[in-house]
Amino acid sequence: MRRSITVRVPATSANCGAGFDVLGVSCALYSEITLTLTDETDEVTFDMTGEGANLIPTDKKNIVWKSVQFLLQRVNMAEKFTGGTIRMKNAVPLSKGLGSSAAAIVGGLKAANVIVGNYFNRSELLDLATEIEGHPDNVAPAVFGGFTVSTTENEKVNCFTFLPKIKLKLVAAVPDFPLPTREAREVLPQEVPRSAAVFNIGRAAMLVASLISGNERFIGDCFADMLHQPYREQLIPGMKDVIHAATEAGAYGAALSGAGPTMMAFAPLQGQNAVKVGDAMVEAFAQNGVKARAMILNMDTRGAHIVNY
Amino acid sequence: MRRSITVRVPATSANCGAGFDVLGVSCALYSEITLTLTDETDEVTFDMTGEGANLIPTDKKNIVWKSVQFLLQRVNMAEKFTGGTIRMKNAVPLSKGLGSSAAAIVGGLKAANVIVGNYFNRSELLDLATEIEGHPDNVAPAVFGGFTVSTTENEKVNCFTFLPKIKLKLVAAVPDFPLPTREAREVLPQEVPRSAAVFNIGRAAMLVASLISGNERFIGDCFADMLHQPYREQLIPGMKDVIHAATEAGAYGAALSGAGPTMMAFAPLQGQNAVKVGDAMVEAFAQNGVKARAMILNMDTRGAHIVNY
Repeated sequence: MRRSITVRVPATSANCGAGFDVLGVSCALYSEITLTLTDETDEVTFDMTGEGANLIPTDKKNIVWKSVQFLLQRVNMAEKFTGGTIRMKNAVPLSKGLGSSAAAIVGGLKAANVIVGNYFNRSELLDLATEIEGHPDNVAPAVFGGFTVSTTENEKVNCFTFLPKIKLKLVAAVPDFPLPTREAREVLPQEVPRSAAVFNIGRAAMLVASLISGNERFIGDCFADMLHQPYREQLIPGMKDVIHAATEAGAYGAALSGAGPTMMAFAPLQGQNAVKVGDAMVEAFAQNGVKARAMILNMDTRGAHIVNY
Repeated sequence: MRRSITVRVPATSANCGAGFDVLGVSCALYSEITLTLTDETDEVTFDMTGEGANLIPTDKKNIVWKSVQFLLQRVNMAEKFTGGTIRMKNAVPLSKGLGSSAAAIVGGLKAANVIVGNYFNRSELLDLATEIEGHPDNVAPAVFGGFTVSTTENEKVNCFTFLPKIKLKLVAAVPDFPLPTREAREVLPQEVPRSAAVFNIGRAAMLVASLISGNERFIGDCFADMLHQPYREQLIPGMKDVIHAATEAGAYGAALSGAGPTMMAFAPLQGQNAVKVGDAMVEAFAQNGVKARAMILNMDTRGAHIVNY
């Protein structure tokens, strides 16, 4: 017996400035995973192409396979599907703050869930993914698409998803050095000034209000942050210059993407601003000795989905 | 020469739980102020009726008069209008966390502004009011009505205002003891856990998302707070019980109104829930030895406005 399915999962950008550990947005840049499960063997074989293909583990420690197993165990079907193959065409840069690990986890869960007959709904998949990843801010937009506001209530994730009325281009400036999330979290203090908390509450709430209502009046002031970026600046040479360059070139604002090192600018959809913004960000990185490439992306609106060829 | 105008300014409830120093909502409960300015005398006379009438200063230290003077000085007309009268019919409880001081400030500014020919627009009035009050969270909804998201950017206040798609009754349980805002601020620490900041960012953003989009799914989890209520609990006997009683009786949630001691519940507009919620809150206060009264209010949608008889 063999079962096979192909899913695509979007890259994601967490935090969006003030929305630290809360906001996320999904990008039309995908990791495509074809999962085949079988009871005919207990071997797992891999076929990786694309971003970081040579860096991704190709044994049972592979995060896609571990996520598949995680779900199969929850539905008592791990013994039914002992082996299989994972084919991955990956366009999401690894360890750059664009949710490659969230995409792998959600991809494994989504594909396995389809094979077992859609046992879990999307909210339940989000809970499973959060259990594996540890926090919901990347896995939430990877599951649902669009913008997400995530909170955790008694270990259950609440995720409010929306498609903004302000149409955006997402402009990523991706440095050539990786930055493990763990390292980027270690520089954060456990205690923060109350005024910094108030600063972020105001801007995160106003960003959400602006995006949902379509009112652009204050959006330019909403991407600032006082809770994580000031501490992570030491790890990302030129961070402030890149933000400044992006807004000067016409973006509404820019922020660290997740834990970095990628910087994400939010630019108006119309006009040629996005290209200018990307060029300006890459140039600002270069002036700080960092080689980076620009990726101009649309927002993904679907989240993880089945691909039918 | 005499000029006279009557304005009404709504009571306001700041914070709404997680939106500490950011969110505010205006209530259809008003302070009505008739201001007469003249150059025929340098005396100011007062005629106060309603809530706390005997507690409000009736000399040139009166906050309405000081706010009138503040505006007149900005337009170089303080010497033109040397005296006058202030008649105030006040329905906003004093020192209870319902924005009585913000209403007085905004009332004085609004009335004086009309008399000098509407020199300032509403955003400018908000800046002036914030300069007097020190923070925007009550004066913003008092000026604009509805819900407000306020941030401060280089001493300029940005205020996003909206009328929620989820229709609400505001149920205030007003204890009989006053609590000066200064005292309620002194118990707050300067440093807070990062996790508490993240907790509040998530709930404030999700509350705004819920109210603007009209999606009720998560609103019940959005009024919790970890930045100020845990510290102020010692000043408000029964705070947690009152919140619990309100939600048990059918409210979406409840929170400290401003710095307290009033507790504000947010209940569905339809049905008889609001009365039950008010009764349950008063009863929960009583069980903690606090005498309180319930006020069932609609949201104000206009903010400070001129009254024409």
